[in-house]
Amino acid sequence: MREKTFVLAPDSFKESMTAKEVCIAMEQGIRKVFPTANYIHVPMADGGEGTVQSLVDASGGQIHYKEVMGPLGQTVTAKYGILGDGQTAAIEMASASGIHLVTKETKNPLITTTYGTGELIRECLDQGINKIIIGIGGSATNDGGTGMAEALGAKFLDEEGNLLPRGGGRLDKLASIDISSLDERLQHVEMIVACDVTNPLCGEHGASHVFGPQKGATPDMVLQLDRNLAHYAEVVKQQLDKDVRDIPGAGAAGGLGAGLLIFTQATLQKGIEIVIEYTGLREKLADADYVFTGEGGIDFQTKFGKTPYGVAKAAKEADKKVIAVAGYIGEGIEALYTEGIDAVFGIVPGAADLEKLLSEGAQNVERTCENIARVLRFSE
Amino acid sequence: MREKTFVLAPDSFKESMTAKEVCIAMEQGIRKVFPTANYIHVPMADGGEGTVQSLVDASGGQIHYKEVMGPLGQTVTAKYGILGDGQTAAIEMASASGIHLVTKETKNPLITTTYGTGELIRECLDQGINKIIIGIGGSATNDGGTGMAEALGAKFLDEEGNLLPRGGGRLDKLASIDISSLDERLQHVEMIVACDVTNPLCGEHGASHVFGPQKGATPDMVLQLDRNLAHYAEVVKQQLDKDVRDIPGAGAAGGLGAGLLIFTQATLQKGIEIVIEYTGLREKLADADYVFTGEGGIDFQTKFGKTPYGVAKAAKEADKKVIAVAGYIGEGIEALYTEGIDAVFGIVPGAADLEKLLSEGAQNVERTCENIARVLRFSE
Repeated sequence: MREKTFVLAPDSFKESMTAKEVCIAMEQGIRKVFPTANYIHVPMADGGEGTVQSLVDASGGQIHYKEVMGPLGQTVTAKYGILGDGQTAAIEMASASGIHLVTKETKNPLITTTYGTGELIRECLDQGINKIIIGIGGSATNDGGTGMAEALGAKFLDEEGNLLPRGGGRLDKLASIDISSLDERLQHVEMIVACDVTNPLCGEHGASHVFGPQKGATPDMVLQLDRNLAHYAEVVKQQLDKDVRDIPGAGAAGGLGAGLLIFTQATLQKGIEIVIEYTGLREKLADADYVFTGEGGIDFQTKFGKTPYGVAKAAKEADKKVIAVAGYIGEGIEALYTEGIDAVFGIVPGAADLEKLLSEGAQNVERTCENIARVLRFSE
Repeated sequence: MREKTFVLAPDSFKESMTAKEVCIAMEQGIRKVFPTANYIHVPMADGGEGTVQSLVDASGGQIHYKEVMGPLGQTVTAKYGILGDGQTAAIEMASASGIHLVTKETKNPLITTTYGTGELIRECLDQGINKIIIGIGGSATNDGGTGMAEALGAKFLDEEGNLLPRGGGRLDKLASIDISSLDERLQHVEMIVACDVTNPLCGEHGASHVFGPQKGATPDMVLQLDRNLAHYAEVVKQQLDKDVRDIPGAGAAGGLGAGLLIFTQATLQKGIEIVIEYTGLREKLADADYVFTGEGGIDFQTKFGKTPYGVAKAAKEADKKVIAVAGYIGEGIEALYTEGIDAVFGIVPGAADLEKLLSEGAQNVERTCENIARVLRFSE
């Protein structure tokens, strides 16, 4: 009998295991049943939290740390990755400018800034890389990416030629944008933006209306921020000859989507597609007999671009069998059966609180995958 | 392709579903994947709680109710079953004399009585049956089955010829046993006792020492009860010429094991073996492609005579594939793999408290079995 090949391509189990740790637990379980099979680990992510770790793990790259400015001007230690090719960097904007870096009391989208994200980009440029993958979910900001651009040399000035204070709250005073000192290296670096939302910069589906409230914006602040971003777009259009206002995704991350389109060589792509490409998942699927995927939670939302959905789609293109495991199985998983996920199993062994389950993730993944493998062996 | 046959032989999921309800949920799940397969329901039990229900459900029999004396002399409504053959009854002693019928405050093995269990037996005799299956787990009593015998006509007398008060606490005064009025029908009725323990009546491994404390016996009471049962065994030996003291299982249910051996035509058997026989499981397994079993909880104790273990053993004799599902998966399930259980899956969809899980048992069994079936389909 030919040895089986298992491709293990899970997302992280949030607050429990990195994607790589899930791969290891999966293999430990399956290996008890198929001791001489081939195991290919492809730690995955979907462009959100864990994307840097996954791309680094999948490519044999390295994590780096850099002190940058947090969303409120404080110093934070942000993480980024250099992939195994040494040419590509990966950033999560949330690491520098994320909502988890403000508190319920301090969150304020009038003043929060993406400056630290710009510092991270500059750090990558300093490392000599020529491609940056940037995940832009989980932001605390609504500044249209102006902070990011400022960290890279752009100047946002009022009528008197003074620098504007940072944050989306003062963009109404924006009179001119000086890009004469903008880092020239940005012209030569490909910026691949992982973006799963299609919101425009302004209007009722724009950054301020849709995402402002979760960042602390009151209804009045939403209106103010939306007006300010519209004014910013207008100034950009007039002075930089770029019209980003209605580009789908421009409104992502408080308008950082727009900022990246304006000031860098950016293309927006679905997060999971980027990860599939840069992990080489499709090539690794070629020899698979079975593909295991999974995520902390799987439910009807999984089909909106989450990792198990993306992996299953790619696997089905290659006509592979796909099994998913999850710590939480919600409503509507039936919808996934037609999307390429052949079966979904929960890993939870019984009634327990979340904290206990998070601490026991690996053993539960291992046990569940072992038992799935025991059933797979029926067909041998 | 030949249609598959699924034999569904789970135990009940305690406090959540009867075994029959589990069968139905299993079929609903699997049927989504194998819509034209054959489904054979064999609701199981292991001689403990749920045995009457299972035997009635598996045989197409009927549940009956009877008011009898509870362990403390109170009136309780006890349940028994007449199996589909109309000739066999099934009783759980706990239904009349169980530990759940006393409280933490009222439990007292000096006075609790098996009288109600004897009334249930008499009721079965009145129904004209010729075989009684009796499960004796979960007792509140330590009376050596004297209450049971009294309800069927035996008299336990002191030196003055007075009837002893009920309960194990006064058996030290036992001087003679009058069986002249013992129900004659007991001679012609086969009594099949479901008993998984091998404890003798007396001594450090006997009824009082091992099971007395959980029925409320203090250390002094344990010694008193043990002496009393030894005296009882001695009187039985002298006057009735029966030596039951050291028979394995005589100490079950506070010595009801001994009482049944003394006063009825009893044979003791493992509970699961009785259920396998009276549900006709072995015959039903003959055509199975896959056997599904399960129980509320599965762990290292499962191999000590629990339903999934018994079902798996029977299935493996017929070389069938066995999959178990459980609401709780504990330590040591690896030991089951060599005992015939091919795979075990938890049904719990995520972090949740027990109450919620108990109320959602059916949908979780259904979803889990559907997904197992989706993997089984790989081999088609």
